[in-house]
Amino acid sequence: MTKIEKPPIVILARPQMGENIGASARAMKNCGLSDLRLVAPRDGWPNPAAEPMAASGKDIIQNAKVFDTLADACSDIDLLLATSARPRDLAKAVISPRDGAHKILEHHQMSETGQAAFLFGAERTGLDNDELATADMIIQADLNPDGSSLNLAQAVMMMAWEWRAAMLDAVPQAKTVSTDFARDLASISDKEFFFNRLETLLDEKGFFTSPEMAPVVKRNLRTFFTRGQPSVQELRTLQGVLTVLSRAPK
Amino acid sequence: MTKIEKPPIVILARPQMGENIGASARAMKNCGLSDLRLVAPRDGWPNPAAEPMAASGKDIIQNAKVFDTLADACSDIDLLLATSARPRDLAKAVISPRDGAHKILEHHQMSETGQAAFLFGAERTGLDNDELATADMIIQADLNPDGSSLNLAQAVMMMAWEWRAAMLDAVPQAKTVSTDFARDLASISDKEFFFNRLETLLDEKGFFTSPEMAPVVKRNLRTFFTRGQPSVQELRTLQGVLTVLSRAPK
Repeated sequence: MTKIEKPPIVILARPQMGENIGASARAMKNCGLSDLRLVAPRDGWPNPAAEPMAASGKDIIQNAKVFDTLADACSDIDLLLATSARPRDLAKAVISPRDGAHKILEHHQMSETGQAAFLFGAERTGLDNDELATADMIIQADLNPDGSSLNLAQAVMMMAWEWRAAMLDAVPQAKTVSTDFARDLASISDKEFFFNRLETLLDEKGFFTSPEMAPVVKRNLRTFFTRGQPSVQELRTLQGVLTVLSRAPK
Repeated sequence: MTKIEKPPIVILARPQMGENIGASARAMKNCGLSDLRLVAPRDGWPNPAAEPMAASGKDIIQNAKVFDTLADACSDIDLLLATSARPRDLAKAVISPRDGAHKILEHHQMSETGQAAFLFGAERTGLDNDELATADMIIQADLNPDGSSLNLAQAVMMMAWEWRAAMLDAVPQAKTVSTDFARDLASISDKEFFFNRLETLLDEKGFFTSPEMAPVVKRNLRTFFTRGQPSVQELRTLQGVLTVLSRAPK
């Protein structure tokens, strides 16, 4: 793992519902984050409602650490980005989720030992002013003004995904998904053979009623069939379709 | 609202848990999406578990439309992007969530009447092969291979947020995309009509020699014809081709 691939820590301040803690762990796992810290969870810890919602993130729940205060949870963290739906009148930078993700990458790249974290507030109330004051910057997503309150685990997903997308973009070799599909594409001459056969059949069957329009219609058909980039196998199927369709009815 | 600000529709195929439908509606609301369609929800509809989870997205739940089949849900949609954790061996473009969001913007900008949608599969199983074959492209997020299965509402959040971020990014500049390639794309129901006719003709003419392989060959044909994103005019030409080819020889 290069420094840039080091995932941020997730800190949940005063989380209420075990289900949301579990769903947050699942979102973290999906995006490759692993270190979850809970500050004064309302219903204590462990919380039996968390694990069922965690799915593949069960290990994150099992390894979650609990702290009494935010300051304790942050003792080894030197970049804390707080998420908030409604930043108060705090004299602090407010940045977008995407810029926040890039801040984390920069931070981990620039510092030998640095550790960054995302901080999320309690359901309903969000982070209070003291919690926001602890943070280095505030992340605010530009959401629909008619309904801007995110579910806690959804907020975690948004930030975890933004971090992952930024990291994958910065470390292209880490990508695991191919962006193209491997197919054995038909050659130009295979396609030419298909087009000629199609056009001959259509000619014989009287498709082209207007001789002036025939070249245009032929070109349009070629354009369509070319656009789909047929594979060798697909072209073979299409040849079979021509054969069968043009058969005399049984 | 400019064309680029037109939000995509969200289609949930065979959703199981009312809670997830509700949480999906909340995520949609957060990001400014509003049109939710459900295909054959397991527990019927309305589902009392949905509204409590919807929070500010309650109106989306109340206005959600239910359909028996995916084809019915897609009748007015001409760009369908399916989300999948594990695209099968379908010869279709697989793109990232971010690129998918940009496809939606481009589509809405280029087409006067176009309507795009995101398609999400059932919890646990995801989209099946027939559902994937209906889509124009497949969106796959490059997630942690050790835990890549997203909660349904989290997947909706990821795509809704990616769309919103792309839209907010695009709107200030009000970029004008060249309309040279603007085509009036065929709707899903136009394509469905074409496929059904093609398959019926092929059936009648004895194309499918092996009953076990027939669904696979049909799906491959659908995949090919969908990949080329036929326009209304092209589909009309293809219908003419079917009519003429299947005519008795003169």
